[in-house]
Amino acid sequence: MLEQIKKANDIKEIAPEDYQELAAEIRSFLIEKISKTGGHLASNLGVVELTMAMHLTFTLPEDKIIWDVGHQSYTHKLLTGRTAGFDELRCFGGLSGFPKPGESECDAFGTGHSSTSISAGLGYVRAREIKGEDYQVISVIGDGSLTGGMAYEALNNASQVKSNFIIVLNDNHMSISENVGGISKYLNRLRSAELYHGLKKGVEETLEYIPGVGKPMIRQLKKAKNSLKQLVIPGMLFEDMGITYLGPVAGHDVEKLCKTFREARRIKGPVLVHVLTEKGRGYEPAIAMPDKFHGVGPFDIETGESLSPATKDSYTDVFGKVLTDIAMKDETVVAITAAMADGTGLKRFASKFPKRFFDVGIAEEHAVTFAAGLACAGMKPVFAVYSSFLQRGFDQLIHDVALQKLPVVFAVDRGGLVGNDGDTHQGIFDLSYLSMIPNMTVMSPKHKWELADMLRFAFKLQGPVAIRYPRGSAFDAFEEYREEIALGKSEWIYREEEVAIISVGHMFSEAVLAYKKLKEAGRKVSLINARFVKPLDTQMIEEVAKTHSIIYTVEENVKIGGFGSQVADYAEEHSLPVKVCPFALPDDYVEQGNVEVLREVLGLNGSAIAEKIEKDLKG
Amino acid sequence: MLEQIKKANDIKEIAPEDYQELAAEIRSFLIEKISKTGGHLASNLGVVELTMAMHLTFTLPEDKIIWDVGHQSYTHKLLTGRTAGFDELRCFGGLSGFPKPGESECDAFGTGHSSTSISAGLGYVRAREIKGEDYQVISVIGDGSLTGGMAYEALNNASQVKSNFIIVLNDNHMSISENVGGISKYLNRLRSAELYHGLKKGVEETLEYIPGVGKPMIRQLKKAKNSLKQLVIPGMLFEDMGITYLGPVAGHDVEKLCKTFREARRIKGPVLVHVLTEKGRGYEPAIAMPDKFHGVGPFDIETGESLSPATKDSYTDVFGKVLTDIAMKDETVVAITAAMADGTGLKRFASKFPKRFFDVGIAEEHAVTFAAGLACAGMKPVFAVYSSFLQRGFDQLIHDVALQKLPVVFAVDRGGLVGNDGDTHQGIFDLSYLSMIPNMTVMSPKHKWELADMLRFAFKLQGPVAIRYPRGSAFDAFEEYREEIALGKSEWIYREEEVAIISVGHMFSEAVLAYKKLKEAGRKVSLINARFVKPLDTQMIEEVAKTHSIIYTVEENVKIGGFGSQVADYAEEHSLPVKVCPFALPDDYVEQGNVEVLREVLGLNGSAIAEKIEKDLKG
Repeated sequence: MLEQIKKANDIKEIAPEDYQELAAEIRSFLIEKISKTGGHLASNLGVVELTMAMHLTFTLPEDKIIWDVGHQSYTHKLLTGRTAGFDELRCFGGLSGFPKPGESECDAFGTGHSSTSISAGLGYVRAREIKGEDYQVISVIGDGSLTGGMAYEALNNASQVKSNFIIVLNDNHMSISENVGGISKYLNRLRSAELYHGLKKGVEETLEYIPGVGKPMIRQLKKAKNSLKQLVIPGMLFEDMGITYLGPVAGHDVEKLCKTFREARRIKGPVLVHVLTEKGRGYEPAIAMPDKFHGVGPFDIETGESLSPATKDSYTDVFGKVLTDIAMKDETVVAITAAMADGTGLKRFASKFPKRFFDVGIAEEHAVTFAAGLACAGMKPVFAVYSSFLQRGFDQLIHDVALQKLPVVFAVDRGGLVGNDGDTHQGIFDLSYLSMIPNMTVMSPKHKWELADMLRFAFKLQGPVAIRYPRGSAFDAFEEYREEIALGKSEWIYREEEVAIISVGHMFSEAVLAYKKLKEAGRKVSLINARFVKPLDTQMIEEVAKTHSIIYTVEENVKIGGFGSQVADYAEEHSLPVKVCPFALPDDYVEQGNVEVLREVLGLNGSAIAEKIEKDLKG
Repeated sequence: MLEQIKKANDIKEIAPEDYQELAAEIRSFLIEKISKTGGHLASNLGVVELTMAMHLTFTLPEDKIIWDVGHQSYTHKLLTGRTAGFDELRCFGGLSGFPKPGESECDAFGTGHSSTSISAGLGYVRAREIKGEDYQVISVIGDGSLTGGMAYEALNNASQVKSNFIIVLNDNHMSISENVGGISKYLNRLRSAELYHGLKKGVEETLEYIPGVGKPMIRQLKKAKNSLKQLVIPGMLFEDMGITYLGPVAGHDVEKLCKTFREARRIKGPVLVHVLTEKGRGYEPAIAMPDKFHGVGPFDIETGESLSPATKDSYTDVFGKVLTDIAMKDETVVAITAAMADGTGLKRFASKFPKRFFDVGIAEEHAVTFAAGLACAGMKPVFAVYSSFLQRGFDQLIHDVALQKLPVVFAVDRGGLVGNDGDTHQGIFDLSYLSMIPNMTVMSPKHKWELADMLRFAFKLQGPVAIRYPRGSAFDAFEEYREEIALGKSEWIYREEEVAIISVGHMFSEAVLAYKKLKEAGRKVSLINARFVKPLDTQMIEEVAKTHSIIYTVEENVKIGGFGSQVADYAEEHSLPVKVCPFALPDDYVEQGNVEVLREVLGLNGSAIAEKIEKDLKG
């Protein structure tokens, strides 16, 4: 049946009695494909019927469906003619794992980070009003994304809209792992409620006729301002903000969903449709372990077991272990995550020190200032966060942490290229946006032992400090190079003359490859591990300038404002007799793909670096 | 009576019957001092009794009072021994207009931007729990700040706390101007409610005894999940999130406030005390025009009229006028502000095109993505925002606007030094954080006519663009220098040889002064107006390098990642036969003070620039 759907709106040809079968086909398709390519599974299995119902009710691309985060848009992709792309899902040049307007005109907005869909949808709604157009706008948001502040800013703003705007709350009781906080508890209460259709008006009328209650009591209650309707409307929190609430609706019943969407479409103003879905629906291993099956590599369909080669010690693992060790001896060490306990390696810490562990929800702005508050009160907080998500806390970093010189440790994971999640998730701006902040110390480790050393060092610093490391296995050669960490001091690995390579963090492994190739070609090469991106080791730069004619810096970060730029600035300003050439990422976004493939394409692996240097030296 | 208060807790010696008089004295003091120095008036007049009550109930510095934004902390400063500082309020080296831990141990957290107090307070609460300490934590937040998403993230997180945490909602129905959005409407409803002390439990009991209602009805209602307590508890929105609500409380009755705080202190878990205050209280002109008296310069106390010399055309005015002209001819132009219609010059546009004007509340994250949505739907949005507040939308700029190459115009006001608001408000990072974002165009005008030209140019560009300009009067000389704007093209003002000065935006006026001094000294100087910080005019740089031995760049932005850094990088990478020396701000925060004074201190005015160049040339 899935084969009949070749483009948007083809699903409307399917007979209602076949909906269930189509849903089953979609699930089988997704499980089979993702078991080979990897990808987001559990969330996609949860929204099969929800997506079908939206496609049955609305007309694409005229109507605009805007996904939040967007990793749950696979069924949407299937229903808009992208079935063939799933063999190359999340590969370099292949189908994106997120909505991309460039991929289909049915993708109304590109996404990747959390809590943006209501804002973007409201933009469409306002444009429609001004232009006098009449398409539908539907923003889909998960209950996890609803813990992000900008979703609330958008709801607050959306409440002023007078024309129809449908917000679908896809409530599966999870972000990547279990949700936290007041809103989550509130949704739990709604979720467990029975539906009282029409009760709202009913009860008010009934009460009026009850002897002894009658008009005066009603008046008194109304006067108390929380009028009777609060008795019987679930979703009062949304209604209080001026948003009509419909639900909760069973999220795996296509026809009921269609009926509710038709109802929602008739409402003037913003309407929130609360849909209950099950993450991982239809695949037992994903239901049992929804966080494991949130994003997965290839797996065995029968058992659910991973078919990816086991990752050796990742930087994330090393961080988690060492942090727990440190916290064992220092009771003031506390850890914060924004709904990423597993991804950031904090699970071990959380189970060992539950009272010193804080999952604040998808709330990076709050997380940073919360850390600042903890530091003011004498604690040593670490906020473990992905590089691209820390962008959300940029102002708080500047304004709450660094300005006050507070000792907060930022464990910036997923720095550099992240691979298959693509442009929205690449951690390629952090060295620039962290270096420009006064009072910050910015480090990056060359291998797993250095991450451990840097973390210990960071907790001793009396100020804000970021340690930036990438996704994946930690480099585990060069164990003997483990000179003690000193503030602003780089580490000489090989000291020669002619050419110097200064590498930042994990790019050390590529720099070593380049070094070897150049040595083979008979070049005299020094190799330096920068360790600190800020403060800059100017003494080392001066030293290098005396004995080398050219410095190559190597970093997995955009060039503008990055490490190489700072080295070049220093050399230029001090008229050092050396030329500085930065290897860095271009002034552009980097698409999805295997990290090795991307580095090759971008000329940022050992071979490309060696080749370019050879060419320079010959030229 | 104010004279008796020399340090924290001295207020406790004042007899209750004298509270009103003390409040009156404080108000007179504030009005008199601020009428001379300028400062934030209306908000401070509104919280006199609230601050007194907090200081009467709590013990400082042991207990922690955390202000939000913090411009309303003047009474707090008076009650903690800083009366003498008010003669130098907001001056260079003088008393800050915001809480500063460096200024007093009674300032528990430094502030300046909106919506941070609950996050910081929660940090203290968690630290207190872990350390087993027993001080009180009180976060004060305005109803305006409550529209900011991070306040909601913090509330959501605070709901999990089991120990006491007092959140004071200072509700004056205003941010700088009138509040907007669903939360504001909701608070309006609470505000108009009478107080029903004890009604909560009362009604439930009463209903049980009403014939015909009784147990079954109660059960049914309870089953409907929004149990009876919702009938009678104002503040259900907060209660729904798990936060106890007390109020509303009359905000100018010290004894009632004290009683409520004592009650609040007894509650386990987070408690929100809703206090109703009047902005500008006690001074008629401030009540009548609270936005004018939000932040004021010196004024005549009798009439309320400004004593500051009238600002000539400011950049903000020019922006507002030209935008309205452009919008007259192009119906797709829409404007967004985050609660700053007046400050950003959008009032004229708003009154002319109310349907195309959007005040989204203090919600910069949402504002940026909302603009992205509007652009996707074919509109031409401009988001007018202060430089330091746009830091809040950094991720959304990268992820929602620039990645999708959407034509959103950012009118970045208050770029560079802003003066008396000090370190939290200086717009000194924008050129760096905007330049590092791919696909961005970054411009800065040298004078008012150029701002007009750039704005017209920006709306024609098919991508994201920022125009950055400062606070205050626009430079209005050099009208004849108005070459047509072309993407990435700088403008030669004077073309000679030896030394080239390239200035960015409003620093042109200082560069002209330097130019004149150098000419007087017989130097051959070229003067270039950069116009574009991104893309860099590399052709111009190459040209300059051919005929000049040294380039001085001049910008009011931190050096790291700024314009000069990019010019130096280019020169270094292409081995241009020229030396690049950037005049820029150091890698540090810049304190408060008159902008002229700050430029002098920082060596960033015409004289200092000329002097440094002379010295270099002689050296």
